[in-house]
Amino acid sequence: MNKNYYAVLMAGGVGSRFWPISTADYPKQFHDMLGAGSTLIQKTFERLNTFVPTENILILTNERYNDLVLEQLPQVTQEQVVLEPAMRNTAPCILYAALKIKKKNPNAVMIVAPSDHWIEDKDAFAKDVEACFKKCETEQVLCTLGITPTFANTGFGYIEFDKATGHGLKKVEQFREKPDYETAKSFLAQGNFLWNAGIFIWSVETIVQAFKTYQREQYALFEKGIPAYNTPEEKAFIESHYPQAENISIDYAILEKSPAIFVLAASFDWNDLGTWGSLYGKLDKDPDGNALVGARLLAQDATGNMVRTKKGKIVVVDGINDYIIVDKEDVLLIYPKRKEQDIKQIVAGVKEKFGT
Amino acid sequence: MNKNYYAVLMAGGVGSRFWPISTADYPKQFHDMLGAGSTLIQKTFERLNTFVPTENILILTNERYNDLVLEQLPQVTQEQVVLEPAMRNTAPCILYAALKIKKKNPNAVMIVAPSDHWIEDKDAFAKDVEACFKKCETEQVLCTLGITPTFANTGFGYIEFDKATGHGLKKVEQFREKPDYETAKSFLAQGNFLWNAGIFIWSVETIVQAFKTYQREQYALFEKGIPAYNTPEEKAFIESHYPQAENISIDYAILEKSPAIFVLAASFDWNDLGTWGSLYGKLDKDPDGNALVGARLLAQDATGNMVRTKKGKIVVVDGINDYIIVDKEDVLLIYPKRKEQDIKQIVAGVKEKFGT
Repeated sequence: MNKNYYAVLMAGGVGSRFWPISTADYPKQFHDMLGAGSTLIQKTFERLNTFVPTENILILTNERYNDLVLEQLPQVTQEQVVLEPAMRNTAPCILYAALKIKKKNPNAVMIVAPSDHWIEDKDAFAKDVEACFKKCETEQVLCTLGITPTFANTGFGYIEFDKATGHGLKKVEQFREKPDYETAKSFLAQGNFLWNAGIFIWSVETIVQAFKTYQREQYALFEKGIPAYNTPEEKAFIESHYPQAENISIDYAILEKSPAIFVLAASFDWNDLGTWGSLYGKLDKDPDGNALVGARLLAQDATGNMVRTKKGKIVVVDGINDYIIVDKEDVLLIYPKRKEQDIKQIVAGVKEKFGT
Repeated sequence: MNKNYYAVLMAGGVGSRFWPISTADYPKQFHDMLGAGSTLIQKTFERLNTFVPTENILILTNERYNDLVLEQLPQVTQEQVVLEPAMRNTAPCILYAALKIKKKNPNAVMIVAPSDHWIEDKDAFAKDVEACFKKCETEQVLCTLGITPTFANTGFGYIEFDKATGHGLKKVEQFREKPDYETAKSFLAQGNFLWNAGIFIWSVETIVQAFKTYQREQYALFEKGIPAYNTPEEKAFIESHYPQAENISIDYAILEKSPAIFVLAASFDWNDLGTWGSLYGKLDKDPDGNALVGARLLAQDATGNMVRTKKGKIVVVDGINDYIIVDKEDVLLIYPKRKEQDIKQIVAGVKEKFGT
């Protein structure tokens, strides 16, 4: 494996649309959402680890998930777990991780990737990422993997690329925020739009230079820590300085400003597993179109349901169609799939009504 | 308390319409179906124990429930638990219990009562039963408590009484099997029909005499055991002889044959808790008409549901109306209330599909 290859897994999110399985104490990436025998972060780590050396994979997460990371990824040392003492969106933590990596290896190229997405084809993923790594090793560019849209999804940001660029990596024209439905349809019609999957590839040299150029203040804040990074002094520095960082995403901070961005249309199947419905889409179905994780289902006049329970629990349903049925030790959710976006709000409702 | 008062609690049933809570291993009478803090058999025992001495209450049940009885009724000794080595309907076990009691106390009067019904008003219950006890102490009659029908229920047997009899205990004309709907309506219109609640009162002298007269063979079978009853020899006798007994109900064996039967219209509220729906009827409802046992409910567009879970479990439902939602450790049931009679069959379906 190439010693210059690094990966940064983003593992600080809460995934509140997957309540009650995903909670602030135990979010989605630490669950075996697909019933596949390993959790999403384990799957993601494994996928990257086919071409990135184990010790070169960093996990960016919140302090409260430190133990979960070490428990689920026993091959990782505490030094590889980069903890944000405060929630400051993606830009500060990416800069911080890049500076840590650069101090170790100034020739590093790195991938930044979410830890909670579904990608089945490891080989295609490795091939695409390595193509970007190669470009970033030789050119001062920022790369991203885009997903070829399958429908006019209004829940994703889009990446518009230059139609004139040939095969492979294409020059990005602009990043476009989540569009309304009509706009999304026009994006699809134009043919040069990809979904932004939050997967970025660059050399540490280039990304640090980009921060220097486009986020001078933020760069100055984290630059002061360089002598401390990867030493026992790092913790104290980060605890006092990190909270001062501007709360800004990498998209706004860098990608929308830089002129040298390239996108590669992913050659693998991808799903952000953003909702119970998208998970349903990825799972095998029984003949009635019910998708089961853990549960053993006896269904009468019941189709299109997403049923999740602990392993082996028997679920008997009659006359329930297109529902999300999720059973946990202390919570049972029976909710229409079409309202899956509202699940986020239930958490607040439950807190208000029951104080938990 | 009157030392001649005895009670026999029938506690061998399975209550399969209350699956998955009630199972063959742990039937309905041993569950706190109402979320009241005690189980149905505990409630029943308590109700009888206000006028029947503790040591005069026998529990008739199947061998497999012996431990459950002793655990839930710690005031009861093993001698009070009368175990049927085989399922032979109600006649044999009532005769057996009557002979045991008669041997101890030939002047005994006894009540036979189901252990899994709901009766809230203990005082009214005691008053009605004592009125029957008094009659049975002085006259050679069989008494029963009937329930004034509130609707044309086709699920119960009916007792037709002689309109001419005055206040209080009325002479029974005949027992009528579960009627069809039109017949049930005509019963209600006639005004001299009560529901058969399976509560019987008689002296041991009279019931034994009735068996002698109307069930000669059965009497002969159990008569042979008299020297053994209430001694260490009883167990061996019952194990060899009980299985030979005819499988017949007390209604067919005695009540439909005897000319000296009286019925008292119960002055208490009664519910047989035969189905989830009848339980729903007895429980308090939240403002949306949802009845909860154990569960804490967050309901959106959800009314008329019967929800039972372990204590404190949060249940979130949306768009579910008039359903039975029952959650147990290993089983979750989501079933329309109107199909509650089919729940019995689910057990077979689950066994067939999952082998458990």
